Amino acid sequence: MKKSQNSENFSPELSSSSSSRTYIEIKEHVRYSETDQMGVAHNKNYFEWFEIGRTEFCRQKKIPYKSIEDRGFFLVVVEAFCRYKRALRYDNTFFIQVSLQDITAKKVVFSYQLLSENKKQLMAKGYTIHIVTNAKSEVKNFPEDIINKLKS
Amino acid sequence: MKKSQNSENFSPELSSSSSSRTYIEIKEHVRYSETDQMGVAHNKNYFEWFEIGRTEFCRQKKIPYKSIEDRGFFLVVVEAFCRYKRALRYDNTFFIQVSLQDITAKKVVFSYQLLSENKKQLMAKGYTIHIVTNAKSEVKNFPEDIINKLKS
Amino acid sequence: MKKSQNSENFSPELSSSSSSRTYIEIKEHVRYSETDQMGVAHNKNYFEWFEIGRTEFCRQKKIPYKSIEDRGFFLVVVEAFCRYKRALRYDNTFFIQVSLQDITAKKVVFSYQLLSENKKQLMAKGYTIHIVTNAKSEVKNFPEDIINKLKS
Amino acid sequence: MKKSQNSENFSPELSSSSSSRTYIEIKEHVRYSETDQMGVAHNKNYFEWFEIGRTEFCRQKKIPYKSIEDRGFFLVVVEAFCRYKRALRYDNTFFIQVSLQDITAKKVVFSYQLLSENKKQLMAKGYTIHIVTNAKSEVKNFPEDIINKLKS
Repeated sequence: MKKSQNSENFSPELSSSSSSRTYIEIKEHVRYSETDQMGVAHNKNYFEWFEIGRTEFCRQKKIPYKSIEDRGFFLVVVEAFCRYKRALRYDNTFFIQVSLQDITAKKVVFSYQLLSENKKQLMAKGYTIHIVTNAKSEVKNFPEDIINKLKS
Repeated sequence: MKKSQNSENFSPELSSSSSSRTYIEIKEHVRYSETDQMGVAHNKNYFEWFEIGRTEFCRQKKIPYKSIEDRGFFLVVVEAFCRYKRALRYDNTFFIQVSLQDITAKKVVFSYQLLSENKKQLMAKGYTIHIVTNAKSEVKNFPEDIINKLKS
Repeated sequence: MKKSQNSENFSPELSSSSSSRTYIEIKEHVRYSETDQMGVAHNKNYFEWFEIGRTEFCRQKKIPYKSIEDRGFFLVVVEAFCRYKRALRYDNTFFIQVSLQDITAKKVVFSYQLLSENKKQLMAKGYTIHIVTNAKSEVKNFPEDIINKLKS
Repeated sequence: MKKSQNSENFSPELSSSSSSRTYIEIKEHVRYSETDQMGVAHNKNYFEWFEIGRTEFCRQKKIPYKSIEDRGFFLVVVEAFCRYKRALRYDNTFFIQVSLQDITAKKVVFSYQLLSENKKQLMAKGYTIHIVTNAKSEVKNFPEDIINKLKS
């Protein structure tokens, strides 16, 4: 994800220069049930869209999230943030861009941008921070091979 | 749930006379996120409300649904139906009434009514049919003691 | 939607022969947030998927649902039904097939089938019945041109 | 909400001392449909719970959010943050505490804490930042009387 030049980086932690970072992108539509009576997509759905993006990120890195869980590792969300820029409305097409902000054996940070259909407008941006656990919610280290695939 | 006399029973299967059937009742509010751009509660939420009602039904029968799953039994929904009568809007108070329509070792049927705050208007009614499985989704028989508690 | 020969038609009302009825189809994935602790897609999501199918049905008939609302007509759900056949799990690919079961100036009935990725298994089927209202929730007649487009 | 002394304030912006700030509290349960296949409440639901808390906050301040919208003002979320501390599971009882962090004619900041049933454990904390708009999404100033009620 080519980082923009502006100063809107939402957290010092996330502002590290990373112009070479790769991102994946998927296209989505706003579902009717995702709108609320204000006529726009409800704020909670953005976190669901972030997650769809993560799923696709892992798939494109040849390590589907399902296969990660099948090996007994879970990416538990410990922090989530979204800045909403412009409203998304019913049936709007938008793009979800996901990049891996940071990864260690113990922590994974994804960042997200939602773009308008013509990709000229930033609709929202955010990040999620995850720790790695097993099925019993015990903190674990991510295996090297998974880290390497996600970083590839 | 004292069945009304009218002819609106939504299915022959469910129309059996059962005037003595007991019901439990809980009070809920429509959440903002449950509305859609039409300004009313979205149709899918009614099935979530039915489920909240089931949870409360089991609790009041002294067999919390959590304890049923802890014993390895799952009530899997195989059929769900709702008839929407009057719209529910943001922050509206309403009542969910749940009764056990039918129960055997292999099948459980719950029926539901949603009533307005003053209980004078029927907002929606519906039913769900469940089979009993274990954690591997294999069909099982419900133990006698659970059946008896739910019927009590 | 070519109706199967079996006797599982969920309602006499909906069993009318309609072998020539056309259907539209879209492909979807089960989102992580759509699963519940049973490890399968929660029953309420099927009604959201039905709706995505309706949206796509209208779009393919050249009368996007958004344009219907923009003209002041709303398709209000008055009845919804789903029969769940086989569980859908996280990241499963599935197909939503939608056909127009019935349409008059006052009532529209859609029917739905959810198929497995290889299209060999019926995962779920259902229907929704809608009336036509204006923005004030007053019952209205659907204009001829909209009916004709949807029927085309 | 009596602020704790610890250094976990999630943002400098939000760390201003405010020991005298009042909070409202409501009790909730985790719904089955709010869990995911990890067996815990999905991260997106916390933002829905924050919103339920806001609704209750306004109600207790004698200015129900519905009445704010009825006067043509909308509290649009421009930023949302949650830090997840401990997992919430199906049917867990928890408390949502909401306080008004900051309010001006143009911006409102709410902060939230989710506590365990015995109130001894912090399950999650977060904040939302809102601007004020009219129904056309134009930025507006909040009327004095609403500000005063919310601050009371």
